[in-house]
Amino acid sequence: MLIHYGGGSVKRTGLYDAVCRSLEAQGIEYLSLGGVRPNPRSGLVYEGIALCHKEKVDFVLAVGGGSTIDSAKAIAAGTVYDGDFWDFYEGKPVEKALPVATVLTIPAAGSEGSPDSVVTHEDGMRKRGATGEALRPVFSILNPELAFTLPKYQIACGVCDIMAHVFERYFTPTKDVDVTDRLCEALLATLIKEAPKAVLNPEDYGAQANIMWAGMVAHNNIVGVGRVQDWSSHDIEHELSALLFDVAHGAGLAVVFPAWMRYVYKKDVMRFAQLATRVFMIPMDFENPENTVLAMIERLKQFWRSLGLPVSFAEIGAKEEDIDFMAEHISYGADGLGGFMKLYAENVKEIYRTAL
Amino acid sequence: MLIHYGGGSVKRTGLYDAVCRSLEAQGIEYLSLGGVRPNPRSGLVYEGIALCHKEKVDFVLAVGGGSTIDSAKAIAAGTVYDGDFWDFYEGKPVEKALPVATVLTIPAAGSEGSPDSVVTHEDGMRKRGATGEALRPVFSILNPELAFTLPKYQIACGVCDIMAHVFERYFTPTKDVDVTDRLCEALLATLIKEAPKAVLNPEDYGAQANIMWAGMVAHNNIVGVGRVQDWSSHDIEHELSALLFDVAHGAGLAVVFPAWMRYVYKKDVMRFAQLATRVFMIPMDFENPENTVLAMIERLKQFWRSLGLPVSFAEIGAKEEDIDFMAEHISYGADGLGGFMKLYAENVKEIYRTAL
Repeated sequence: MLIHYGGGSVKRTGLYDAVCRSLEAQGIEYLSLGGVRPNPRSGLVYEGIALCHKEKVDFVLAVGGGSTIDSAKAIAAGTVYDGDFWDFYEGKPVEKALPVATVLTIPAAGSEGSPDSVVTHEDGMRKRGATGEALRPVFSILNPELAFTLPKYQIACGVCDIMAHVFERYFTPTKDVDVTDRLCEALLATLIKEAPKAVLNPEDYGAQANIMWAGMVAHNNIVGVGRVQDWSSHDIEHELSALLFDVAHGAGLAVVFPAWMRYVYKKDVMRFAQLATRVFMIPMDFENPENTVLAMIERLKQFWRSLGLPVSFAEIGAKEEDIDFMAEHISYGADGLGGFMKLYAENVKEIYRTAL
Repeated sequence: MLIHYGGGSVKRTGLYDAVCRSLEAQGIEYLSLGGVRPNPRSGLVYEGIALCHKEKVDFVLAVGGGSTIDSAKAIAAGTVYDGDFWDFYEGKPVEKALPVATVLTIPAAGSEGSPDSVVTHEDGMRKRGATGEALRPVFSILNPELAFTLPKYQIACGVCDIMAHVFERYFTPTKDVDVTDRLCEALLATLIKEAPKAVLNPEDYGAQANIMWAGMVAHNNIVGVGRVQDWSSHDIEHELSALLFDVAHGAGLAVVFPAWMRYVYKKDVMRFAQLATRVFMIPMDFENPENTVLAMIERLKQFWRSLGLPVSFAEIGAKEEDIDFMAEHISYGADGLGGFMKLYAENVKEIYRTAL
């Protein structure tokens, strides 16, 4: 078995040792490969694949957060593939991989329950995703106590990432999906209730348990069934954190999402009003439902700010003069970005401007 | 592959032929075994196992509702087991089984997503359950159009069964499970909204789609994570439908559940009040929260009655003089029935009396 992990935190907290002792007690042989960074890179994946070949590894255990898990998935797929693992990140579906399991330390990315992996190729710093049921972990250990040592800001970023995974699924042009709407709303309501408790006291077991489980459910796609989904905000955010290295993905999403909502809500005012009344408890303005939506967007910004997250370009050091470059750097394909409302560079510029 | 099915309805609707044509188009060899009855029996399971051995079957496809799926699971486990398949229904965990898949025709039992199976042994008519991850279907086809031909009463019974699966998980002594509460509430709110549409017009695709998906999510245990769960009402109902053969499980639950709620709610008034306000939109009575709960129980009975379901002994032909026999026939074990509040024969008699 290969234990795959990131930096020093799993060693510092004693988790790495606990995992090793547990494997030894069961007589399971292992070797380990650390060094995964946020936005995991191809270099370490190639190293992991070579190691798995050499040592005939048949199982990959990721101990860490989303980056570690994504890197482990890449190694697992690449080890049983004759070609370059990067093929999967250029669109080839993953049909076979070593089994991957996880010990999750950061509730955020949802990779512990998803069939997806995102890796950045060091040649050109291309950040791409691969997918396939073979990448879904065979089991994941979600122990809320492992989140007790996270910095408060990282807890907040994780919550924002989880909320964004739900929003991306909630905003859809499809109809007839009340059950999916309700499940999405259930997760959001939970996060709004529990996140302030976890940020106030990271050792609040109940809050961390709810957040950790919500993070898995938010992204294993059970709350995405029956819909087109959107995902443009993730792409719009990516340019921000690509340009400003010290902006966490979750923080970037806190900046982008309210601006995206403000730009697109007229496409389906009633869907936004439904979210506003059911989750954010904004009273419905029946004369002018748009007021309900605008009040919700403000409430969302207040909520994220209360967790210590930035909600504007100014707060993360992004600048108006970066907007054209970022908007034009996104790949829009033939159909534009997003499933809820198609966006092109001109639209994305407006969204960035709204976030100034 | 073995196609396993029930009575004439899948033949009448053309579904059986469609499945066969689809398998033939893919060059998949199959044989078939029909005749599953509601409350599936051991006799047909033994026949199925013998057939699978003789024909070297390696895959079981259930085409039907919960009974057919449960019977298919029993065959799948028994075929790869040296002993009597009934061992699994007497408590032996199922660790190996042929892969089972399903084409679901009745949203109700949730067996299409669960690791469980309930079969009745003809020797003594013992109704027992088996469980094990190996019994979880490898895939299930949930096509809402297959529910279009269901009788309205059966749709209503199915909805009641699904709601009961959620209630059994909602009422728990465990704390710190807000996310599970919210997911349960999401399903219940959806069912309350969609069921009347499906009963009014069984060809309402959206309503049937929501109900069908809610039925799977309600019982694959994603809404049961982190809790003890209750399940006493299922046992209390079982005696009713065992005594009165023509009472459907869902109809029996509509009679039992409000009476159970009335009997146990004082154990945790606030949990019931939470359900009342969040799902049934009953205004909270802060001076006397019990009023909120009692109003919800009445609302629930009204709702089930509006779907055409019975909510009292009188409506299903059960009699007061049956109560002692039924209550004393239940197996209470050492710890009593149920995880929310422990019940014994005396308590169950009271619950039956409340349902008169």
